[in-house]
This record gives sequence, C-alpha cells and structure tokens, in this order.
Amino acid sequence: MNKHQKIAVFGGGSWATAIVKMLIENLETVGWYMRNEQTIAHIKENDHNPKYLRSAELDANRLDLSSDINYMVAKYDVLIFAIPSAFLTGELSKLKESLESKTIFSAIKGIVPETGLIVGEHFNREYNIPLTNIGVITGPCHAEEVAMERLSYLTIACQDEDIAKKMAEALQSWYINVKTTDDIIGTEYAAVLKNIYAVAAGIAHGLGYGDNFQSVLMSNAIREMKRFIKKVHKMKRNINNSAYLGDLLVTGYSTFSRNRMFGNMIGKGYTVKSAQHEMSMIAEGYYATKSAYKIKEEKGAKTPIIDAVYNILYDDKDPKKEFKKLTNKLD
Amino acid sequence: MNKHQKIAVFGGGSWATAIVKMLIENLETVGWYMRNEQTIAHIKENDHNPKYLRSAELDANRLDLSSDINYMVAKYDVLIFAIPSAFLTGELSKLKESLESKTIFSAIKGIVPETGLIVGEHFNREYNIPLTNIGVITGPCHAEEVAMERLSYLTIACQDEDIAKKMAEALQSWYINVKTTDDIIGTEYAAVLKNIYAVAAGIAHGLGYGDNFQSVLMSNAIREMKRFIKKVHKMKRNINNSAYLGDLLVTGYSTFSRNRMFGNMIGKGYTVKSAQHEMSMIAEGYYATKSAYKIKEEKGAKTPIIDAVYNILYDDKDPKKEFKKLTNKLD
Repeated sequence: MNKHQKIAVFGGGSWATAIVKMLIENLETVGWYMRNEQTIAHIKENDHNPKYLRSAELDANRLDLSSDINYMVAKYDVLIFAIPSAFLTGELSKLKESLESKTIFSAIKGIVPETGLIVGEHFNREYNIPLTNIGVITGPCHAEEVAMERLSYLTIACQDEDIAKKMAEALQSWYINVKTTDDIIGTEYAAVLKNIYAVAAGIAHGLGYGDNFQSVLMSNAIREMKRFIKKVHKMKRNINNSAYLGDLLVTGYSTFSRNRMFGNMIGKGYTVKSAQHEMSMIAEGYYATKSAYKIKEEKGAKTPIIDAVYNILYDDKDPKKEFKKLTNKLD
Repeated sequence: MNKHQKIAVFGGGSWATAIVKMLIENLETVGWYMRNEQTIAHIKENDHNPKYLRSAELDANRLDLSSDINYMVAKYDVLIFAIPSAFLTGELSKLKESLESKTIFSAIKGIVPETGLIVGEHFNREYNIPLTNIGVITGPCHAEEVAMERLSYLTIACQDEDIAKKMAEALQSWYINVKTTDDIIGTEYAAVLKNIYAVAAGIAHGLGYGDNFQSVLMSNAIREMKRFIKKVHKMKRNINNSAYLGDLLVTGYSTFSRNRMFGNMIGKGYTVKSAQHEMSMIAEGYYATKSAYKIKEEKGAKTPIIDAVYNILYDDKDPKKEFKKLTNKLD
C-alpha cells in the first residue's frame, strides 16, 4: 500500500465526501476540490462537511482543499470526479491545465447531458484520455453508510489492472471491501441505468403498487439492463454481480434515493417541473432517461421500463396509464 | 375459462387464504380444507378468515369448507397444498382416500422435514404421483397484498403445459398476472432457498449490517441459488425471472417475513430456541437450511451463505464471527 498516491476528489456532495473519507483511511494527503469556499473554510475548521455526511469526521490536516480546479489538476495524478453530471462540463470548462497523462476516475453515475455520453466516454472523446487511463468507482454504496462505517463493497473498473488495483488499495479498509473488473463501459452504464429503474420504482410506489410488484419490476429491470448493456458493449459479464444487480437493488429499494423520491412524486401526480422544483436536487435518472432512450433506439434493445419512464418524463404521458401498459409487458 | 374446475385448497394460513381469494374470483365453488372447525364456522358466518388476511372478503356461499381431509380429496380433482411443511406429513397421514389420478399443486415453499424432499418430490416418491401431475404455485407474492388486491405476479410450474394453463386461468384476475413454466424442480427449490436467504438477511440486519451489505448479500444469494439449483436439476432457466429473483427479493427485502424476523432475532443474540418460542410461528427457513445444507454437501455446490446460516442455526456458531467470515467470501 503506497500512502503517497496522489489522488484528488472533485465535488462537494455526499458521494464525494464519502470517497474522501475512504481515501484518508489510507493516504497521507487527499486533494479535494469543491466550488464553495465557505464549505472549505468550515471543513478546515471543524473537520466535517457542513452540508453532506456531517457525521463523517475528516481530518482536515490531511486534506488539501481548494476551490481552484487548475491547482488541483496540476498537483494530482489521479482525478476522481464526483460532480453531478449536469455540472460536469461547466466545471471542466474552467480547465487550463491539461488532463493528458492523468488518470481519470468517474464516480458520477450519470450521463453528461451535453454529449449524451457516460462520463468515461466523455473524457475519452472530448479530452482524448485513452480508455486505459479511465476508471469507474461504483457501488452498491450509499454514502450515508460509509459515513457510519457500515461494511460496504465497491467495484473499481479499469482496463489497466494495475491502475484498478492501486485505486482498490487506496479505498479499502476494515469497512470497505473492493473488487476490480475491466468492464468500465458496463459498470458505468449499470450505474446510470439503475437510476432510471429507481425512478420507475418511485413512480410505481407513488401510483400505489406494492412490494409484490416492486420485486417483479426489479426482476425485469435487471434483465432489461443486461439486454441494454450487451448492445452497447458486448463482453462476458455476470449481470448478477454486485456492481450491476447489487447497485440496482441498493438504489431501487432505498427510500432515500433521490431518483426514487422524484419518481414517487411523479406517480403521485406532480408534474416533472414541480417535482424537480420541490426536490431542489438533481435526480440523475431524469437526464439518464433521455440519453438511455436515445441509445436504445439506436441500438435496438428491448427496454419497456425505460420506455415507460421516458414517455412519462419527456412525452407527457399519464403515469397511471403508462404503467398499466407496462405491467402487461413484464413477467 | 372453465368456471367448474374442481380445485380444493388445503391449509388455513395466510397463503392458503390468499389462494382461495384468487380462485373464487373465477370459480363457482372452491373446496377449502382446514383443521380448525371454529375457523370454518367463523368464515361461514362472516365471510372472512378470522386469523389471517381478515380484510379479504370471501363469499362463503361459494366455499365448500370442511375439516375432513378425506371428503375434500374424494370430491376434488386438483389439490393445492398450502400447509406449513412441518405439518404436511401429519395431515397426509389422515388420508384414506387415494391421491392417484389427482393433480397435486404445492404452494408450500418448504422442505418436508421427515423426508428432506421438496413437496413435489415428496408426493412423487411417497405417493407415486407422476411428476407430470405435480405443479408448483410460486410468487413473488405476499399474501397480504393479494388481500389488498395489489397487482401481483404468480408463476405456475408444471411439466404438463395444459395443467399449468388451467391453473393459470383459475388464478388470474385484474390484480393477478400469471405465467407458466415447466421448471417444477427449480421453482420449488427457489421458493425454499429464498427463505434461507431471508434468514441470512435478518441475521445481517440483527448484527447491524446496513443496506449496502444487504444488496451485496442478495446479489451473492441469487448467484448461489443459481449454482445450487443447477446441481439439483440442470436445465435452461433464467435465474433472474420473477419466480426466482423476484421471489428472493420480495422475501429478502420484506420486514414482515417470518424468516427475516427469525434471523433478525438470531442476529440480535437470541438462541434458536428462544427465537422460535418468541415467534410462535414456523420459520420455513429453519428447516430448509438443514435440508439444503445436506443436499449441497451431496451435490457439491458452493454455498457460503447457506453454510453460514447452517453453522449458526445447527452448529451453535457465533453469528457475529460466522458473518464476519462470510463477508470475506462475498463480492
């Protein structure tokens, strides 16, 4: 274990905070970029993030905090992005430092709205980062349980096994088990799609469907996810591994998931706009639905659940009628 | 749809009551055997089962209720057993009527303790019922949600497609979707094994593991279930279909599951005896664990979760230590 790996985390939300917490279990110093200077000042003074995971104690002496993204990119070799996908291009537009020679990890679980790409592909195509220098950090993992130091399992995906292993070493601890895989495309799509299925679970709950239906929905969702990912990146993978099925379940069954909450409001009759306003948070599943729908149209995957969510969110279809139709397509 | 199919249900519990409710949506008369004569009198007078699913209205005029098992077997062609597996042989020992020429459906989801067989195999070996006349009714389905008429999906397994279809017709309604399969062995083992995994989920919860771990446990459980069932009955099946994965999830994520409650008490430090005493109900998973462990030893399947539950329930191992070991075998 090399305590001197030069890793920086980008983002100030709960998942970014959880990743920082995991890293400082192992590393001497962790770089941490966030926009909000008041938050930085608070962390420096009080050893915790005032906005997210307040209970997670973070030794500020070992944090290299900055609101200057160029400082952070220049100084660190491995960059972990944990910014909501909707803000990613805005943040990256500030860059003057080159990303070449950097290793980029996505912990975003969303699709970049401007390009419709998953984050790894976005860095690959827009910044010419070779795919071998791109990785994914995925769950199943609620940030809140990392804060509580409850045993959690992460999957690190990278085509370069050595890079994956180093990141695994930096993250693992007595409460974090890490495994590695080379399926960067599949794990990242799984992390994106599961948010759509969490929206679907929320809509179903909002409409009054019960636990029996939820289990059927999840059983169909994992089969749909398998079909979808096979179309975008065919390789041998076990869709029931934790990075795919586990991640779907931890989100689809969570009553705290933003995506599920968003769906729940839609099911209860809120318009998309009013649900978004009410939540004042970004439900990644909302953007993911549009991109995933477009991709499945291009690739020709059979995705009745994504279709139903898309029709409700983007085509103004009635949730009740749309789900009634959906129930006849599930088994 | 033949309204005159001669179907009888055996058992007075919540799942038996739910099946009766589904059947009288379609059939003119449903036979219903249960031991308790007071309960029978109450149902005749009040149109509901006083002990289980009280809210489910059951038109007593269309029920042929009796506490005489021989009367019921003689009069009906298709017999659905929904008695806890621990009581099955006791009930069957009362039989003077022959079961030959009958079609037997198991809705038991347990292993017969005296023979260590799943219910279909028990009827096949002990009563010479040909496998083609044996079927399985399986979920994912909480009886409580049937009572509430919330959309639920059943799977009917029978090697004889015609028998499966007739049973599907008798059970389906505006709130029940039914599909059929010929995998009687696999669906019945899935229904048995999921109770063990629900015990495991309960133990984990009782020990303080969180939702992140639960999703990893379920992700490993479905892979373990696939390996186990493949060893006992190799055929082409999609383990992510509702009858397998859906059934696992509806039980493993249910806080009302008896098996999960039983496991939870074990995790919290109750002895097996005191947990059983406290519950005053049979947790099918308890018996299932012993039989499944024996079968996997014979067949050589890798089943770390079943092993851990077995070691705790039958070998007096400390749940905390046993689960600590288990966490290193999961991924």
